[in-house]
Amino acid sequence: MVPHFATALSGPINELEQRILDSMPAIERWFRLEWMEHTPTFYCAADVRNAGFKLAPVETQLFPDGWDHLTAEMLPLAVQAAMAAIEKICPEARNLLIVPENAKRSTPYLNSLVQLRRIFHMAGLNVRVGSISAEVKSPTTIVLPTGESITLEPVVRNKGRIGVKDFDPCTILLNNDLRAGVPGILEELHQQYLLPPLHAGWSIRRKSVHARCYEEVCKRFGKLIGVDPWLMNPLFDPCGKVDLADTGQRQELGRRVDALLGKLRKKHKEYGIKEKPFVLLKADDNRLQWTPVVLHSAQDLDSLDPVRVHGHQSLELLLQEGVPSSERVNHVPVAPMVYMMDRYVVGGYYRVHGPRAADAPSDGLQGLQDSGVAPLAFAQGVHLPQPGARPGASAPNRFYMYGVVGRLAMLAASYELEATDPQAHDYS
Amino acid sequence: MVPHFATALSGPINELEQRILDSMPAIERWFRLEWMEHTPTFYCAADVRNAGFKLAPVETQLFPDGWDHLTAEMLPLAVQAAMAAIEKICPEARNLLIVPENAKRSTPYLNSLVQLRRIFHMAGLNVRVGSISAEVKSPTTIVLPTGESITLEPVVRNKGRIGVKDFDPCTILLNNDLRAGVPGILEELHQQYLLPPLHAGWSIRRKSVHARCYEEVCKRFGKLIGVDPWLMNPLFDPCGKVDLADTGQRQELGRRVDALLGKLRKKHKEYGIKEKPFVLLKADDNRLQWTPVVLHSAQDLDSLDPVRVHGHQSLELLLQEGVPSSERVNHVPVAPMVYMMDRYVVGGYYRVHGPRAADAPSDGLQGLQDSGVAPLAFAQGVHLPQPGARPGASAPNRFYMYGVVGRLAMLAASYELEATDPQAHDYS
Repeated sequence: MVPHFATALSGPINELEQRILDSMPAIERWFRLEWMEHTPTFYCAADVRNAGFKLAPVETQLFPDGWDHLTAEMLPLAVQAAMAAIEKICPEARNLLIVPENAKRSTPYLNSLVQLRRIFHMAGLNVRVGSISAEVKSPTTIVLPTGESITLEPVVRNKGRIGVKDFDPCTILLNNDLRAGVPGILEELHQQYLLPPLHAGWSIRRKSVHARCYEEVCKRFGKLIGVDPWLMNPLFDPCGKVDLADTGQRQELGRRVDALLGKLRKKHKEYGIKEKPFVLLKADDNRLQWTPVVLHSAQDLDSLDPVRVHGHQSLELLLQEGVPSSERVNHVPVAPMVYMMDRYVVGGYYRVHGPRAADAPSDGLQGLQDSGVAPLAFAQGVHLPQPGARPGASAPNRFYMYGVVGRLAMLAASYELEATDPQAHDYS
Repeated sequence: MVPHFATALSGPINELEQRILDSMPAIERWFRLEWMEHTPTFYCAADVRNAGFKLAPVETQLFPDGWDHLTAEMLPLAVQAAMAAIEKICPEARNLLIVPENAKRSTPYLNSLVQLRRIFHMAGLNVRVGSISAEVKSPTTIVLPTGESITLEPVVRNKGRIGVKDFDPCTILLNNDLRAGVPGILEELHQQYLLPPLHAGWSIRRKSVHARCYEEVCKRFGKLIGVDPWLMNPLFDPCGKVDLADTGQRQELGRRVDALLGKLRKKHKEYGIKEKPFVLLKADDNRLQWTPVVLHSAQDLDSLDPVRVHGHQSLELLLQEGVPSSERVNHVPVAPMVYMMDRYVVGGYYRVHGPRAADAPSDGLQGLQDSGVAPLAFAQGVHLPQPGARPGASAPNRFYMYGVVGRLAMLAASYELEATDPQAHDYS
């Protein structure tokens, strides 16, 4: 079933769609060559916004959950991609250990974990789930509403390797974003493949570093297909550490907000976009429970919640162009999530935003899932374009474009992990 | 929609299915390691028979047609596999030339060609179809009943490369089984990738060489999962050149028929199989329009069509165990075709045999397609098993088994092409 697009999708986005379709062979070749130089992040989910006038990822998750929303039609694609990934990393692999989030025990998260386990089991591996949470002291089996069950086993470390009882994996798949820091039990694992690497965790990652890498990727991609990179790239300004309780620093932040809005107004004028631009104030390191703040002007900073101002005095902050979602399914605002494994787009789904969608900040999956996400599967053939269809009229063509933008985000993450790799000097 | 199995599938085949499912991680790992040593044949289709008591490929096609029977659900898998294949062979590829059969201009064949073109176009390549038929002197566009069209362009050779006008491919995909011999225009193409290689054509191939390689693969696989290789392997006897008009040579052939039937009777007795064994007399080189002959005893040779006896006096012949098809869909006998690309099972379908199916010889797709094939798609998830389901009760589990046997046939073809590679001495 192809979700119905309620919006009249016209303007720049259709031109972008057409350009992307026309350039398909060039785009696929470019990705092939990029992946020869840069290693995919193993898996990745891009949270994409289609504003009608531009299309951009607003978040790139390197430890994605939500796998359970992939449909039965998408599962074989994920399994085939997992086979390709394993073949490259460790063809002699027998055992895979998944290390999940410590604190997440919600049914949606565990459903996602069951699906991940299924994908790698079907790719031909023995899979166990090893928790590094201090609360998991013995194997803990949880039966899910689906009737399936999952057993979390305590991770044990022995002679520089980790595993669970009677299970020595050659590959460890992290599904834990390490926002509390890298635990010692995962450090210095030189004999096992740990994927994605530890520096993909939020103790090291910065959204601004990703944004810079994504900007670079978009510049090159824009040149390749001959479009303004802004059509795929949200403008941003990394503000560094800001003490919101300090008047001078807040004024400086206000100047930056106005400067970014000024740039956006020019862009909107250039493209005849009637929507008013807005920016999001985000925590650059994603470690605190800091919901992004929507700002339509510097004045909006004045009405900041005092808890935010005084509770988080010295935050690393990032200003990012807000990309509203113009897509509606059955009159409900939605935004696509694009899932990738190895270098392949394996599926995706729409997340329902609720009525505030147009400028509602969305910072990763969690908040929306808790507020009742209603996933809508992409049509089958998520990355199979229909040449010849009118731009905006073909869901597969639209999804191909989403898959391209999703892969640009993954490629940016790959650049990002190279830039932040603590072992990089070993090779250079 | 999962086709309904009308037969009571019990006995050895269910044990085999269970063993294959239980050994899934070992099997997938074994294939991964095999594919490190042996190159897949790029693409391949295996014509499989499920006899209820054994499961075996009876034909392995290295230039498969029938791609159009893959369903929309399977297409993304084929595209992803094509991307993986291209990435390995020639990541910088822009252009792919498909060289189709010379004489085949039937709608089914052209539909298959359109689908192949679609798969590689969606994988991100510019695709053209270049004919080496003397009849194609200028670009010839054929509009198909689907409304799609295909243009056959004459292949031109220039400075040791082939292409079509204004199109210089880096990779050439043969979909031409070269049974009439290797044409000069395809020889000595050292600057382009020609896939599968020329010696995969029927001017070089022998069914007996493939059968020997398949026997070796089955022995190793049987040892891996602890089953009698006969459960996957049709017994055979390569008879070499036989002059059927020569009484002495016919008597010798009769002795071989009885010897093979004797072995089969022992096997049937060992497994308590009530069906009477039979053997097929096939042309080893597949070059003549020689329909396989069903033989229940040496006496059956006496009733051989005189045209066969005197028209083909000195044929390379092969005796092969007949594997009847016990599968029925809506009371109609069917047999599965398994399609592979790179190292992946990408789909399959059932071909309808007609009432004579149980012992009807089937020698490749063509005959059956001409006689009105009614393809039935495999359920989605052709290679996604359902652990825990009762053997014989789960279509996905059955299809996983078919995918394993299909891959055994592809692996055997890979061994075969190594054994017959005219350039092999260059490396050894």
